[in-house]
Order: sequence, then structure tokens, then C-alpha cells
Amino acid sequence: MRTLRLLLEYDGSEYAGWQVQEGARTIQGEIESALFTLTQERIRARAASRTDAGVHARGQIVAFETNRDQIPEIGFQRGLNALLPPSIAVRQASVAADGYQPRRSSRGKRYRYSYWNAVERPAIDRKFVWFVRQRLDLESMKMASRALLGTHDFQAFRSAACTSKHAIRTMYAIDVSSGEHARILLDVTGNAFCRNMVRIIAGTLRDVGIGKIDPGEITSIIASRDRKRAGMTAPPQGLCLEEVIEDDRLPPRPDKSEDPERE
Amino acid sequence: MRTLRLLLEYDGSEYAGWQVQEGARTIQGEIESALFTLTQERIRARAASRTDAGVHARGQIVAFETNRDQIPEIGFQRGLNALLPPSIAVRQASVAADGYQPRRSSRGKRYRYSYWNAVERPAIDRKFVWFVRQRLDLESMKMASRALLGTHDFQAFRSAACTSKHAIRTMYAIDVSSGEHARILLDVTGNAFCRNMVRIIAGTLRDVGIGKIDPGEITSIIASRDRKRAGMTAPPQGLCLEEVIEDDRLPPRPDKSEDPERE
Repeated sequence: MRTLRLLLEYDGSEYAGWQVQEGARTIQGEIESALFTLTQERIRARAASRTDAGVHARGQIVAFETNRDQIPEIGFQRGLNALLPPSIAVRQASVAADGYQPRRSSRGKRYRYSYWNAVERPAIDRKFVWFVRQRLDLESMKMASRALLGTHDFQAFRSAACTSKHAIRTMYAIDVSSGEHARILLDVTGNAFCRNMVRIIAGTLRDVGIGKIDPGEITSIIASRDRKRAGMTAPPQGLCLEEVIEDDRLPPRPDKSEDPERE
Repeated sequence: MRTLRLLLEYDGSEYAGWQVQEGARTIQGEIESALFTLTQERIRARAASRTDAGVHARGQIVAFETNRDQIPEIGFQRGLNALLPPSIAVRQASVAADGYQPRRSSRGKRYRYSYWNAVERPAIDRKFVWFVRQRLDLESMKMASRALLGTHDFQAFRSAACTSKHAIRTMYAIDVSSGEHARILLDVTGNAFCRNMVRIIAGTLRDVGIGKIDPGEITSIIASRDRKRAGMTAPPQGLCLEEVIEDDRLPPRPDKSEDPERE
């Protein structure tokens, strides 16, 4: 038996998120069904991040066990890409250490949230951005984002549905920049994220950008631990899991008890 | 009666191109149907470029006449965006000179062709790129592209279906560069284009990139005027009409007899 590791990209538009659900099309469901066709084994695939409905990924990590030792890594890579729908692609497949757990091996994740800041709605980019008509002030958003850096209790920035024991997380890097066409990009790297945390940060920074929240208020919003003080949960289609960081660009996780949460 | 001018963006994936066709969904059809709902007039919309099936646009120019003088420009802009499908968006609407003809006012067009050069197929970008698995050599492609600059008879680079009187066109700028993720971008600005011309250039430069055609051969391919010497017609989803140039960044068209052709 071997443990295999996949680097996965997907357009989350058509899916009810990563996790298998009765009666819904999910990424996990598609992967497991393609694995069954390829191996004739009932395989359970586990992901570094349980992305929500409509959220995309360019760097999801997935692991699973197989007894089909005769199928080489490239066989999984090519075979899965032939079997999976066009909206899901395997970028790499490789053998991992026995029992490798992507959620435990993750030292942090990098997400990108994309706004579309223009007078009229986008057409080409519509499935990958949040359309904001009011002018976003980049400098205020940058200033506000800096207050989120470091280790904080992000209670005000997590969904009521979040099941994590606490909301203490470390943000290593946050950047707001302009991208191609009318895109404004929010890049966040953290050790782990509470449920909906990046999207609530994106919603709060939108409010900063339109002048509804002052950049100086972020510190007191964090301190309040009050979800109502932060902005709305930004819509899922703007969010993309860019990378799961497992190497020494980030410090190791201090203990194994706290699970990195879904976003 | 007024002439209105629209700046249009569309995701061409779901459409049989610009031009109205019996039994097919087209951009022109959608625009005219939205205009009818808005004005109750049977309006004929004319475009700067009759883009082919599957081709995208960020800067298509469209003009039409209307007797609804009570509808302001912003009324057309907002009204059309509310009525059009999400894959088509009006970026701007403005009043133009009476009888304004976007095809005659065009001094040139800028197109972008996007390749996806990676070992495995893309998922997120799949509707907007041409997936090329063999490694593309950027330097060879750049070198080859320079041979296309200037005024040439592009007979070897046009579709058999092209109805233009001749294939003499001027390429003002051609650039090959790497873009985000696995994208390689071909940007072409010319006074006008024969049918499929950008896509045949893209197909030929792909062959240069994989080493099948030598960069030095381009000049003799042009001179041959032989379509079979050039590469395949690259698939439509990689192509986007970025901009129609009407101002003095480009020289005026020398005469009105030659029509800028569809691509």
C-alpha cells in the first residue's frame, strides 16, 4: 500500500465545495469517483483545506491510500486528468510518506481574494471576482490590512458555524495590490484560518475601501471579538486557495492538537 | 434619432460568434434582443469586429441608431447590463456622431492570444487559453514574431473562407511574453486582420515554440503566400479582442475601400 499526494486545481463554480455531501456535486466526490474508475478501489481522499461551495483552488493538496502498486505516479496524474471533469485538474501526483496527512503537514496557507472594482459588472472574469461598484481606496485597504498581521484572536472574523476550539491564528503576510484590468487582489498567508475567515477579512476590507470602516478601527474590531463589528462575508467566487505551505518558508506548527480550519 | 456607441466585453465560450445566425446564440443576437426589450425598437447593431465562435472580447465596439431620445446614455449602459446575460457586459455607452461606423472608424485592433504551457491541462483558465503540453521556447517565438512586423501580404496566414480582396496588412506591434501562472501571451496590434489571421499566427508561433518551425523560416512562409506552410489555426478560446484603436496612436486608414476583416 502506498500513500499518494496530489496537487490539485479547480474551478469551484459548479461545486458544493470540497467535502462529499449527499445529493451534491463536490470536488471530493469527483476525485473519489475518478479514483474508483482508475483503481476499482473505494478510496477516501483527504484534503489540506475543506474549501466551501464556490471557492476555487490552484494549490489544494490531497492524499489517499492505494493498493494498486502497479500504477505509477504519472499513471495517476494522467489517468485522473483524463477521467476528471474539465473544471478539476491534477497538476502533480507523487508518492508521499506512509500515512501522510495534508492537514497536519500544512504549516500555513496562502489565499487570494479578488475584487472587481469598476462601474459596470465584469463578463469574462465574473466567476472569479467580487464585483464592487463603489471606488475602493487601495491605500486605506493596505493600511487596514497591516493591523491584521501577527497573532490575534480572530473571533470577530469567523463564521458562527466555525467549530474550531478557538480563533487564535497567525497572519504572516497580507498584501493588497491592483491586478490586471479592474482587479484588486488581497493576498493572505496565515498558519491556519477559521471558517470563512478570509472572506470576512475581504468583506471588512471592502468596507474600509469604500470608507465605511476607518483603517484605524481594525485593531478595535479584533479586540472586540464581535462578529457584528466586522464586515460581511465576501462571496465565495472571489476566493482561491493558492498554496498550501509545507516547507521551511514557514515555522512548524507548535502542536498537533489544533486543526487548521476550513475556509 | 441618435447613434449610440457601446464598449463591450464578452466571454465568447457559449456563443456562435458575433454575427446573428439562424438557430444559434450570438452576441449580436443577445444585444439586439436586449435593445428591443429596452426600446421596443427593432435595432440592428454593428460591430468593429465580427468575432468568430468561441472568441472573447474586452474591447469590442458596437454602434446602433435609436429614436428613444428620452433614454440617456447611462440608461442604455445600466439597462443593457441588467438585461444581457452575465457573459456579456457593457463597459461604456455614449452618444456618437450621426451614422458612426465602428468598422470605418477603426485604425487598428489589438488582440491577445493566450497559451497555457504546462505538463497538465488547466482547470480555472480552461475557457481562455490554448493548452500546449510541449515546452514553448519564448525566445524563438519572440524572434519569429518580429518577422511579422510591418506591411506584408499575409495570404499564408488567412483562412480559405476569407472574403477580403487581398491580404496586405500592417502589423504595428507584436509581443510574446509570459503571463500569470502557466500563461504565454501573444499580443498583436495591426491595422486590420484577415479572417483567422491572429489564430494562424498563434498556431505558427506554437510550431516555432516547440521547434517544428525555425524562427528564420517566417519570412519565407510569408513570401510563399501558401497557407499550408503556416501552422494550424489555433483554437478560438485563446483569442480575445482587447481593443479597437480609433485615436491617433495609430495612423488613419489610407482609404475607405478596404474593410477591416473579421477575426
